[in-house]
Amino acid sequence: MASLPKDTLHFPAEHRPFLEPHLPPKDLPSVKDSFPFTTVTFATSLDSQLALSPGAPTKLSGPQSKAMTHYLRSRYDAILIGVGTAAADNPSLNCRIEGVGGYGGQGLEGQPRPIIIDPAARWDFTANQKIFQLARNGQGRAPYIITGLANPPVDKKAILDEAGGKFITVEMATTGVNDHKVDWRDVLKALSLEGLRSVMIEGGGAVINSLLQPENFSVINSVIVTIAPTWLGTGGVVVSPPRRLNDEGKPMAAVRLDHVEWHPFGEDVVLCGKVKI
Amino acid sequence: MASLPKDTLHFPAEHRPFLEPHLPPKDLPSVKDSFPFTTVTFATSLDSQLALSPGAPTKLSGPQSKAMTHYLRSRYDAILIGVGTAAADNPSLNCRIEGVGGYGGQGLEGQPRPIIIDPAARWDFTANQKIFQLARNGQGRAPYIITGLANPPVDKKAILDEAGGKFITVEMATTGVNDHKVDWRDVLKALSLEGLRSVMIEGGGAVINSLLQPENFSVINSVIVTIAPTWLGTGGVVVSPPRRLNDEGKPMAAVRLDHVEWHPFGEDVVLCGKVKI
Repeated sequence: MASLPKDTLHFPAEHRPFLEPHLPPKDLPSVKDSFPFTTVTFATSLDSQLALSPGAPTKLSGPQSKAMTHYLRSRYDAILIGVGTAAADNPSLNCRIEGVGGYGGQGLEGQPRPIIIDPAARWDFTANQKIFQLARNGQGRAPYIITGLANPPVDKKAILDEAGGKFITVEMATTGVNDHKVDWRDVLKALSLEGLRSVMIEGGGAVINSLLQPENFSVINSVIVTIAPTWLGTGGVVVSPPRRLNDEGKPMAAVRLDHVEWHPFGEDVVLCGKVKI
Repeated sequence: MASLPKDTLHFPAEHRPFLEPHLPPKDLPSVKDSFPFTTVTFATSLDSQLALSPGAPTKLSGPQSKAMTHYLRSRYDAILIGVGTAAADNPSLNCRIEGVGGYGGQGLEGQPRPIIIDPAARWDFTANQKIFQLARNGQGRAPYIITGLANPPVDKKAILDEAGGKFITVEMATTGVNDHKVDWRDVLKALSLEGLRSVMIEGGGAVINSLLQPENFSVINSVIVTIAPTWLGTGGVVVSPPRRLNDEGKPMAAVRLDHVEWHPFGEDVVLCGKVKI
């Protein structure tokens, strides 16, 4: 085996059984007219924040949680983020766990397909961004960008084509300039059509808050949240779904989980569960 | 032993050792010119909310967590809430765990002193409220009300006197109508002067957010937070301390905890820790 890249991550075997019931089965068939196995996963502070501000590097969870995220990525066909996160973070969106393609493994085995939700195709990328460099190095896959535009910009299309990625057009209602209503069921169906059998939805706040609404509950197979013992304080990027009202117009809990398990993990805790329908 | 009241709570012995390192030592001396052993404790949703709206009955944590709260109360000389919670909830603020006074125990043993922070003495109570009924029944103590007023209303004072409670005046800066800056160190010192060696600060949001600020870190001995696997959704009562800036004026985490332990507890998780100074 060639020597491993220096940034290869290791996720101890003893933590894997806890996650297993919440992950896509390993022999999942591809069903093109259905939905992929969908997991919502992210790390927050005690005050439910992903970051101090959009794109701000925010040290929240410990190194073990980072390794867990990469282990999870190895178990999904696709990982999905919103354009806000892509634009702010110059993200790698690959998997660096030991044994996947580019990190000791064969080809691109275990490397998930990055999916970026970008309704107006506003993500302003070049071929020099990390995600394309990694694709050229055989350490990750080029992204698929989900857009509402029937004809996405040709220059961006060229960069994607070159790298092995593409735009995927999904019909979306426009509610204002740069403001689209993403129908998650349509997005997930589009992934199934591409043969992607499972997807891990990672953020950011806008994506998660729009996903955690009743019309999507039936297509969310599992939820994995890491919580760090820190309050970031007011003003950051908050995960809190829109308020939900009961039949009498009174506020009710937006989302309840069941089949809940908590797993202390270093200084953090990992919560796994299913959305209660 | 007389038969126990029907609403007596039981907290299983196997959950107690986990909490012990975070509780006041049992042989704590009374030191009148110091601070009491101070614990901040509350239950939130995943989106760090105490309730759907101020005073709204919000089912969050399970029955085990309720029993835990009452067990904790038996371990403190005082429990403290803000006037907002007192006014909205008609709270009992006693301890109903088996073995304390009024619930199988002698006299008022194990019953904490309720402390209500009410700078402008606006809590509009009568002798019929639960807290006074319980005091008359020998199932709880009458409250001490911390106010900024040098001369609190005489009618309220009479009700308190009759029940065995009182107003305690602590100097506070007024920042507007009904808006006082509570100096927590002064409040805590006032409790020590009363011989109260330990206090558990329970809420609501305004109290907790004002307490979780750097000038108070050194007087907080422990933090015990219960988290329920539910997102309440935007618009509720949020625990998130004020934004904190570093020496360069950049946002930083408001509060970090260390000596952290997580304890899965029914569907909920209990976090115990200390504020990192």
